[in-house]
Amino acid sequence: MRENIKIVVDAMGGDFAPEVPVQGAMDALRENTGITVVLVGRTDEIKKELEKYTYDEKRVEIVHADEVIGFDEPPVMAVRKKKNSSIVVGMNLVKHGEADAFVSAGSTGAILVGGQMIVGRIKGVERAPLAPLIPTANGPALLIDCGANVDARASHLVQFARMGSIYMKDVVGIENPKVAIVNIGAEEEKGNQLVKETYPLLKECGDINFTGSIEARDIPKGDADVIVCEAFVGNVILKLYEGLAATLLSKVKQGLMSTFRSKIGALLIKPALKNTMKEFNTDDHGGAPLLGLKGLVVKTHGSSDAHDVQMGILQCVQFTEQKINEKIKDKLTVEE
Amino acid sequence: MRENIKIVVDAMGGDFAPEVPVQGAMDALRENTGITVVLVGRTDEIKKELEKYTYDEKRVEIVHADEVIGFDEPPVMAVRKKKNSSIVVGMNLVKHGEADAFVSAGSTGAILVGGQMIVGRIKGVERAPLAPLIPTANGPALLIDCGANVDARASHLVQFARMGSIYMKDVVGIENPKVAIVNIGAEEEKGNQLVKETYPLLKECGDINFTGSIEARDIPKGDADVIVCEAFVGNVILKLYEGLAATLLSKVKQGLMSTFRSKIGALLIKPALKNTMKEFNTDDHGGAPLLGLKGLVVKTHGSSDAHDVQMGILQCVQFTEQKINEKIKDKLTVEE
Repeated sequence: MRENIKIVVDAMGGDFAPEVPVQGAMDALRENTGITVVLVGRTDEIKKELEKYTYDEKRVEIVHADEVIGFDEPPVMAVRKKKNSSIVVGMNLVKHGEADAFVSAGSTGAILVGGQMIVGRIKGVERAPLAPLIPTANGPALLIDCGANVDARASHLVQFARMGSIYMKDVVGIENPKVAIVNIGAEEEKGNQLVKETYPLLKECGDINFTGSIEARDIPKGDADVIVCEAFVGNVILKLYEGLAATLLSKVKQGLMSTFRSKIGALLIKPALKNTMKEFNTDDHGGAPLLGLKGLVVKTHGSSDAHDVQMGILQCVQFTEQKINEKIKDKLTVEE
Repeated sequence: MRENIKIVVDAMGGDFAPEVPVQGAMDALRENTGITVVLVGRTDEIKKELEKYTYDEKRVEIVHADEVIGFDEPPVMAVRKKKNSSIVVGMNLVKHGEADAFVSAGSTGAILVGGQMIVGRIKGVERAPLAPLIPTANGPALLIDCGANVDARASHLVQFARMGSIYMKDVVGIENPKVAIVNIGAEEEKGNQLVKETYPLLKECGDINFTGSIEARDIPKGDADVIVCEAFVGNVILKLYEGLAATLLSKVKQGLMSTFRSKIGALLIKPALKNTMKEFNTDDHGGAPLLGLKGLVVKTHGSSDAHDVQMGILQCVQFTEQKINEKIKDKLTVEE
C-alpha cells in the first residue's frame, strides 16, 4: 500500500456544499489513516465548517478557490472562464502532480470538460467516459458511458468496452468480464446505426470477452459485467435505475401501511428488507471515475450526502493503489 | 357503443402460439358479448385449440394463413415475401375493411413494417410509433416511441408528441396532458443533437402542453403524461422498467424469506403488497397501439399470456369505439 495518498475534495461541489464535502472528508480521514485531504474552495467557508470537527491538522490542507461553477452553466465556457473555480483549481493540482486524485459532487458537464481539458486524456484515448457501477442481481456491473459525451462514434464505444473490461478485471477483480452492448434486440442485425457499426468492431476485439447485445430488461439480472452504450442511453439507464427503485420502494412502503395486518407484518420484515434494498442502492457504490485520463477524477452524485463523498474519497484511494489509469494506458497502448 | 366489433387475432403470434392467442380470444368473447374474433393462422392448429372450449360459433371465424414470421427474421423482407403469413393476411383484413383491428404478440419489427406497408399511415403522418402505457406513481403515462423506428428525426418526435397528446386526452381521459421529452438534464441546452433540434419545435407547438425535458429518474414519479423519445431510448426505458421491477421484486421476496421473523411478516403483508405491485405491473396495461395508421394495429408482448391477449383485444374495442386514429387524422390534418 502506498503511503500518504493525497485526495483533492471539491468543497464547493454538490447541492449541500460546503457542509457535506467537508463532513465527507472528515469521515474519510477517520476511516483511512494513510490519506491527506486537500479542501479546495472558499477558505472562509471551509474554515467555518472545519470548526465543527477535531482532526489532525497535518492531514488537512485548504487551497483557496474563489469561484464556483453552477449546475446550469454551459460547461466548456465555465471551465475556460472560471480559472479560479474549485473544479479548475482542484484539477490543476492533479495535473501538476501535487495530488493523486480529485473528487467532486459538482456539475457533471464541468467535471467532464475539465477532466479532458485540464487533466488531459491518455494518448490514444478519444473520449473519457464516466463509468459508474450499478447494482444487479449478480453484483455490481459497470455502465460505460453515462457522462455528457453525447453523440458518440463506434470507435469511442470500442474504447469504452476495452477500458471497462480493464476496470472490472483490475479494480473489481472479475476474471474475463463479460462485455455487452446495449441494444433493442439480441440479434446482431438489430439496433440503431451506432450499434450496428459498433457490434462487428467489438466482435473483432481480441482483448475483451464480448458476449453480444444486452437488452435493457436483462441488465438488472446481471447478464453482463461491462455494459457499453453511448452517454445519452447510459444516463437514461442510470437515472431510471435510481428513479424506479425509489418509486417502487415508496409504493411498497405505502402498501405496507395500508392495512392493520400489513403494518404488523412491516415491523417484522423491516430488518430483512433493509438489507436486501441496501444491495440494490445505486448510491452505495460511491462515485464514478472518468476513465482514460492522465490523472484520477471521480464524480459523485450532485445530491451526495457525506457518506457518498466519503465513499468517493476512499474509492480514489483504491483507484490510486490499483493504478487504474496507468493500466489503461499500458494495455490500450499495447493493442494500438 | 358500436355493435359487433370484429377483431383479428394473430393465432400464430408470440412465444406460446397458438394456445395462448386462442385462449385469450375465448376469454375476450366471454368478457365482451359485442365482439366477434377472427383467428388468423394455420386452420388445423387453430381448430385443435378451439376444441378445448365451448363458444358461440357465430362469433368466431378462422381465416387460414399458412406461414409464420419468426422473431429473428428481418422484418421488411419477411413482410414482403411471406404474403401468406398470419401477420400479412390479418393486416390485409383490416386494410380492406373486413375487420376493425388486428392484434398480435408476434415479431415487433414485422408488425411495425406491416402496419406501415399494408395498413398504411394516415396522410401526413411520417412514422407510426409504438406507444405503450407504463405505470407511474401518478397513474399510467404514454411512452412514445418504443418501436423499431430507430434513428428518428426531430419532425417525427414532434408528431409523436401530438399523437400521444391526443391519445392521452381522448383514450385515457386526461385533460391537457403534460408532454415532456426524455433528456439528460432539465435545461434546454442539454441533450444530444436530436433532442436539441426537437426541443424548440415542441415549444412552438400550439396544440400540446409541452412542459420541457424529463430526466429518466422522474419518469416513475409520473411527472409527465406523454413521454416523448426516439425508439431506441424508448425501448431501453420500457425494458428496463420490466427488468428492474422483476429483479427488485425477486430481491424483496428473497429478503422476506431470509429470516424466521421476516417469513411471518411476509404472510401478513402479502395481500397488501400484491395490490401495490399490481399497480406497477407493465403488462397490465395490455398491448401498445401503433398510432397514426389508417386502421387499428395493437402489439402485445412476445411473451404474452392469455390475459395479455384478452386485454389487447378489449383494448382494440376501446380504441375502435373512441376512434383514436380518426381523431389523430382530424386533428393532425387541421394543424398542418
